[in-house]
Amino acid sequence: MADKSCKLLEGKKASDFVASMDTFIFDCDGVLWNEGGPLNGAVEVLQELRKLGKRIFFVTNNSSKSRAAYLKKFEKFGIEASEEEIYCTSYAVAYYLKEILKFDKKVFTIGTTGMVEELDALNIPHTGSGPDQSSGGYNMQEWTSFTLDPEVGAVVCGFDEHFSFHKLIKAASYLAKESCLFIATNCDDRFPFSSNDIVVPGTGCLVISVETAARRKAEVMGKPERVIFDCMNSRHTIDPSKTCMIGDRLDTDILFGNNCGLKSVLVLTGISSLADVKNLETSGKADDENSIPDFLYAQYRSTTITIEIYKQGV
Amino acid sequence: MADKSCKLLEGKKASDFVASMDTFIFDCDGVLWNEGGPLNGAVEVLQELRKLGKRIFFVTNNSSKSRAAYLKKFEKFGIEASEEEIYCTSYAVAYYLKEILKFDKKVFTIGTTGMVEELDALNIPHTGSGPDQSSGGYNMQEWTSFTLDPEVGAVVCGFDEHFSFHKLIKAASYLAKESCLFIATNCDDRFPFSSNDIVVPGTGCLVISVETAARRKAEVMGKPERVIFDCMNSRHTIDPSKTCMIGDRLDTDILFGNNCGLKSVLVLTGISSLADVKNLETSGKADDENSIPDFLYAQYRSTTITIEIYKQGV
Repeated sequence: MADKSCKLLEGKKASDFVASMDTFIFDCDGVLWNEGGPLNGAVEVLQELRKLGKRIFFVTNNSSKSRAAYLKKFEKFGIEASEEEIYCTSYAVAYYLKEILKFDKKVFTIGTTGMVEELDALNIPHTGSGPDQSSGGYNMQEWTSFTLDPEVGAVVCGFDEHFSFHKLIKAASYLAKESCLFIATNCDDRFPFSSNDIVVPGTGCLVISVETAARRKAEVMGKPERVIFDCMNSRHTIDPSKTCMIGDRLDTDILFGNNCGLKSVLVLTGISSLADVKNLETSGKADDENSIPDFLYAQYRSTTITIEIYKQGV
Repeated sequence: MADKSCKLLEGKKASDFVASMDTFIFDCDGVLWNEGGPLNGAVEVLQELRKLGKRIFFVTNNSSKSRAAYLKKFEKFGIEASEEEIYCTSYAVAYYLKEILKFDKKVFTIGTTGMVEELDALNIPHTGSGPDQSSGGYNMQEWTSFTLDPEVGAVVCGFDEHFSFHKLIKAASYLAKESCLFIATNCDDRFPFSSNDIVVPGTGCLVISVETAARRKAEVMGKPERVIFDCMNSRHTIDPSKTCMIGDRLDTDILFGNNCGLKSVLVLTGISSLADVKNLETSGKADDENSIPDFLYAQYRSTTITIEIYKQGV
């Protein structure tokens, strides 16, 4: 039986909790918005927290957009945000390479235009996005005559709607050199919604394919790994004990918060349910304990969730 | 410490062994040929075994070719073989669906022309090979308006040089229905050779991507799974105690032989080495014991390997 249990956040406990925090990190999909648009109350919650002088960050595993593209989404939904507050994994990759690893070679990219925009913004040379431009055709002889670019010193794997066997060959071949860095944005297996019986695979499906071919594991930027927190911390001074992670997924958001020593709050408007929390609490597995949130806000009305925590806290 | 150990096949032991077997199953790549052409002695070994009245089969995990295309490769290399002796995984998929499962719906194919030739040969309807023909473009809205074919009752994943994100979306979406069968040809992570520093990823890299998106495991036809042996056995009567598997890979060929209750012989012209055998023998892990070959032929000259076993055996 795990020692840790998830407590309901209500009444004075909620207001004391908000008062004791100086920084709030929000996941986006399933917390601020879903496929139907912004969630009820999201705008107001953020406004209230800003009035209280709290610092806000947005951390998303989504690697398909740049911060600039995310900012447009925030604007569209009427949510106040600045580019500096947004940590999407495309930006995290660029920041991590440039500022943490001091990387000075070229990146072989499996990624979208959002990814290459972030690499461009930090002047990191890369092989581009879009369909693979190999002249090589579709047989073994042509593949084994591919020429590798000697400037490439890292393979970055993010979401890529133009993922192909040619890209897979090249990634695995660059990664055969031990010195070549291998960085993935995130390992989410699916996008968090489906429609018309269509499942939309996530970046994790591409990462695991490259890992299998390369016989190596990627260093992962996204939640639940703590790299993105280290990036944030290197630009801003963050006191983990006064920082709260708010998310809808136990295995990414909450585990991330706990991995980084933050307080964690689960909201029930997205993927994980109260039953999922109970399963973790009673599993008896030590590993599961780290995905149990500190707090749960369960008394939500319709899709209004986070607002209730903070209204009580005001 | 494992109880089982690998014995060197030599002298009278070798001739007694060959005499006690009536059927020999050969892996192909690394056993009969490699990227440089046929291995020295392969033709003669097979001729000697045929003269002795032994039955021969060829079992390969390669799913890119049909039996007809394989036969041309045998002919090119001057190796006697017939289509009925060849069990490639593209054929195994078709045979397994039609003859074992009595499948009567349509297959969504991730595969080559070789795969669809085998499906055609058994009159199994399928969605074809080559680049995905969706009119849908490269954004979420278009993906979620993909139309699924209600006739599809199985997803087959083999090697596919035109693997794409669109195919991945469709495979995962079909597999969201529990009743949809999920069959993979093999899980090899790479083709067994590289050239010019190029790594050519194998079918396993595609299978694991689909499995991740579908949150399901595929039923795998290829070695080391025993399905292909069951297919062979349903067409021919095979006595496992008188059947010998000859291969160059411990984790596929030898494990397959042992999983099917066959005798197993490792040759050293391909992937696995004597050191690999010793590692298994001393690992102390029960799981490893099943990949230890019964026999090893180590006293080979240049690339001539299998011939020596059987010349002694004659």
